[in-house]
Amino acid sequence: MSKNVLVLPGDGIGPEIVAQARRVLELVNQQDNLDLQLSEALVGGAAIDAHGVPLPEETLDAARAADAILLGAVGGPKWDTNPDFQIRPEKGLLGIRSSLGLFGNLRPAILYPQLAHASTLKPEVVSGLDILIVRELTGGIYFGQPRGVRLKEGNVREGYNTYVYDENEIRRIGRVAFEAARARDKRLCSVDKANVLEVTVLWREVMEELSKEYPDVELSHMYVDNAAMQLVRAPKQFDVMVTGNMFGDILSDAAAMLTGSIGMLPSASLDVDGKGMYEPCHGSAPDIAGQNLANPLATILSVAMMLRYSLGAGAPADRIEAAVSQVLDQNLRTGDIWSEGMQKVSTTEMGDAVIAAL
Amino acid sequence: MSKNVLVLPGDGIGPEIVAQARRVLELVNQQDNLDLQLSEALVGGAAIDAHGVPLPEETLDAARAADAILLGAVGGPKWDTNPDFQIRPEKGLLGIRSSLGLFGNLRPAILYPQLAHASTLKPEVVSGLDILIVRELTGGIYFGQPRGVRLKEGNVREGYNTYVYDENEIRRIGRVAFEAARARDKRLCSVDKANVLEVTVLWREVMEELSKEYPDVELSHMYVDNAAMQLVRAPKQFDVMVTGNMFGDILSDAAAMLTGSIGMLPSASLDVDGKGMYEPCHGSAPDIAGQNLANPLATILSVAMMLRYSLGAGAPADRIEAAVSQVLDQNLRTGDIWSEGMQKVSTTEMGDAVIAAL
Ligand SMILES: CC(C)[C@H](C(=O)O)[C@@H](O)C(=O)O
Ligand SMILES: CC(C)[C@H](C(=O)O)[C@@H](O)C(=O)O
Repeated sequence: MSKNVLVLPGDGIGPEIVAQARRVLELVNQQDNLDLQLSEALVGGAAIDAHGVPLPEETLDAARAADAILLGAVGGPKWDTNPDFQIRPEKGLLGIRSSLGLFGNLRPAILYPQLAHASTLKPEVVSGLDILIVRELTGGIYFGQPRGVRLKEGNVREGYNTYVYDENEIRRIGRVAFEAARARDKRLCSVDKANVLEVTVLWREVMEELSKEYPDVELSHMYVDNAAMQLVRAPKQFDVMVTGNMFGDILSDAAAMLTGSIGMLPSASLDVDGKGMYEPCHGSAPDIAGQNLANPLATILSVAMMLRYSLGAGAPADRIEAAVSQVLDQNLRTGDIWSEGMQKVSTTEMGDAVIAAL
Repeated sequence: MSKNVLVLPGDGIGPEIVAQARRVLELVNQQDNLDLQLSEALVGGAAIDAHGVPLPEETLDAARAADAILLGAVGGPKWDTNPDFQIRPEKGLLGIRSSLGLFGNLRPAILYPQLAHASTLKPEVVSGLDILIVRELTGGIYFGQPRGVRLKEGNVREGYNTYVYDENEIRRIGRVAFEAARARDKRLCSVDKANVLEVTVLWREVMEELSKEYPDVELSHMYVDNAAMQLVRAPKQFDVMVTGNMFGDILSDAAAMLTGSIGMLPSASLDVDGKGMYEPCHGSAPDIAGQNLANPLATILSVAMMLRYSLGAGAPADRIEAAVSQVLDQNLRTGDIWSEGMQKVSTTEMGDAVIAAL
């Protein structure tokens, strides 16, 4: 039966990197007779420009109907100053995550041996790094009510947001993390601020309860400030980390940057049935947009994740990952991962190389 | 006129490191006829053990009466499982900060040239690092109401906290940061999550308004996830950073760890009149408590900060900092900053060396 993949190029470098990833997907679609139907829609700033809103109805409908979604990136200075907070590119992204219930965000931080030099950390600290951060993506302070800016007594402006999780939300993301740890090195570190925030006291409690169902997984807890330190001090101590939406946003970016090659890192956002949205960990990089400079590999690797997790096609996923490794072995590098002695290539040339390797 | 200094040893390594810092303070008190009266009180786990609460009335009264406070550290596994969330060591610390209005937290992240090797980052990335993080300390999600864990429909547990700032709180910490930047390299980076959280949209707005009063300071804004990345990628791009309580907790610890020698970093928490509490950036390290292993230098440097900021005694502050630099030049190192070829010393030996240098 044919499956639908919705492609959302988004803003900044989004269209360029997604174009290369789409070529890769179309190729394996042919090679393996996957019967995938690809369509495209607007989201983020691109949708604001065309339709006045970051998540048009037709995009949301298409996203609901799709079996998997490939996203580039959203956002840029052009829309940052929009006084209406609802008309920002990010609201498009958050709207899809929330409407589709994509609560399980998997963010691997892996150091490619070929790119070991790219890290700002000493080689012995990061060589062989392989962390998986599991971030809750549809709850927490990102979506908590009430929220806003109001005038209180004396015409004083006050801004407020609500950090809230119920035990079901915590258990649901906890299971994703325990399962992931079970399939890896069986060590799960849950990150909270249980010495200050009540919502994370409950988080810790539920993780403890859940750990009884996973006696083979070693559960530990760490305060978020310490986790940020430990990622810098000794990142290889971690196998899988699980945390809420806001802490996960911060820690997954820090962890990704440890590798020095955030242009290489894909991510998945999954619903309860394994349907998912796939996107690179990096942002829309408006400063280099439209210049054929961006690294398309994180988006191409997101295609591999998509094939494996949402489309039940592990074989082409393996081949794509091998092809990426091969182009690195060929010393091809976009500017972000380039170093002395390597061959600098453009976005499209990198896409060509992966296609050739496939 | 005589001034009062309250000493709060706290938990874990607190008593050991504070003992050395106290010796240093007593020495310069004599040398410079500062007429300081020192007293001691219990806080944190030590206060729970003795009085059943982390912040006894008499400690709070003494803190209010003092001109400056020197704190070791609080917390430890012994009290972490206390089911009553109010009876935790951290509540003692938070109680003092809040009751005394110590809203302005200054956390320098400085790389000592003698300890450049201690960093996990490559020397070229961190050499000469000198960042000041200004963290709001008495508001935000740490103190926001409502908060708690409740049962909602269907007996489902739900945890919630409130992230709230009004414009006065933001302006107050903003001024501290702008003033600090003015006295340094005149660059201030305000960290928020204004693409998602309304409370930080107001934060950004107020910082912009305030910047009109400081035309000589260059203000920039950065999202917190990007700030965590940039601290790893290129920390020397920053001069002064300002942010709220929770983001400041995370980023200041990450920044401190960039130096690899968190055992060297003091901090100050100031009220509107410059009265303050001074403490090392590191925690209570229960694993090495009572073994004469801890590094007392961050606490000794906190004494220097205290003399300078709250006691109007810049000369002995300079001398203490010079003495610390001198013992490093003598190659004396506690275990946390020790490396091949250096002389390993205990907590008390390090204290002796600083005293001798003074
Ligand atoms: C663009 C932004 C809303 C988003 C987030 O904060 O979740 C991004 O930083 C991410 O991590 O995917
Ligand atoms: C002990 C804890 C409550 C405290 C905080 O989170 O503020 C500590 O981490 C700090 O940064 O001083």
